[in-house]
Amino acid sequence: MASKTMKDLLIMELRDIYDAEKQGLRGMNKVARKVTNEKLKEALSNHKEETEQQVERLKQVFELLDQRPRGKHCDAMEGLVSEAQEILEEGLEPEVLDAAIIAAIQKIEHYEIASYGTVHAYAEAIGNQEVAKLLEQTLNEEKKTDELLNKIAVGEVNKKAMQAAA
Amino acid sequence: MASKTMKDLLIMELRDIYDAEKQGLRGMNKVARKVTNEKLKEALSNHKEETEQQVERLKQVFELLDQRPRGKHCDAMEGLVSEAQEILEEGLEPEVLDAAIIAAIQKIEHYEIASYGTVHAYAEAIGNQEVAKLLEQTLNEEKKTDELLNKIAVGEVNKKAMQAAA
Repeated sequence: MASKTMKDLLIMELRDIYDAEKQGLRGMNKVARKVTNEKLKEALSNHKEETEQQVERLKQVFELLDQRPRGKHCDAMEGLVSEAQEILEEGLEPEVLDAAIIAAIQKIEHYEIASYGTVHAYAEAIGNQEVAKLLEQTLNEEKKTDELLNKIAVGEVNKKAMQAAA
Repeated sequence: MASKTMKDLLIMELRDIYDAEKQGLRGMNKVARKVTNEKLKEALSNHKEETEQQVERLKQVFELLDQRPRGKHCDAMEGLVSEAQEILEEGLEPEVLDAAIIAAIQKIEHYEIASYGTVHAYAEAIGNQEVAKLLEQTLNEEKKTDELLNKIAVGEVNKKAMQAAA
């Protein structure tokens, strides 16, 4: 069996996150449509556009590594998306549903934070600064999205959910 | 359909993370046994003990909420664990495998960070400070584990992985 290098490992991880991002884009549309809170709606719409740019950025990264952009099915994202979709069947009040949707999306964000953190570190380890820089840009965007969702949840959505279902 | 409240949502999320923690404990033993780096071995052994305490802490939380501790199958953790186990079949050099195992565990940690962040915020929203405090304790432990794994990866394991497979 051919032994695999850090560059191989980087490419494996990139294929995982490339698939994960695309699964997330496909699977979360249905969920995002159920959101009622205006701030949350806007955040998710911006995040969707940002994610599309992140997918393009991943294609650039594959190119810089002389690879054809190709995904490998990400089991974790499949589970994350299916859990997010199940929430819609739980019979939650609209305000409580908003709170639950934020939680589901933050789990997806955290998958992506872990994943981009990893590929960024691998790119630095193999000394490819150009790739590392692109991946760091996405990593920072994912962290910001997570912080924004925290703010919307704690500052507004969770409170309204409490009042609605009291 | 009975409308569900924030307390119901908190309990749903607690059942998810209760199952997730137990799946992680069961599924990651096999993976942790393949680690060769000594610092990483020690970190994972400490983390396993900590996770067992976190499961006990969750039981306390269920009790404080007048609930029987009960899990609900967590699809996301099933995907995370199955991806971690697949790494063992990839034919990686031992040092490269260590790097890959860290990545898999950090994805699990990030699932837990998102999840405990959520239940902590829900407990605060419903005004249950005792539960919030217990969940915050675990949240902080998960964040520390993630930081420690970062340090081990960047400071040591990724470098050795580069040398090994050069």
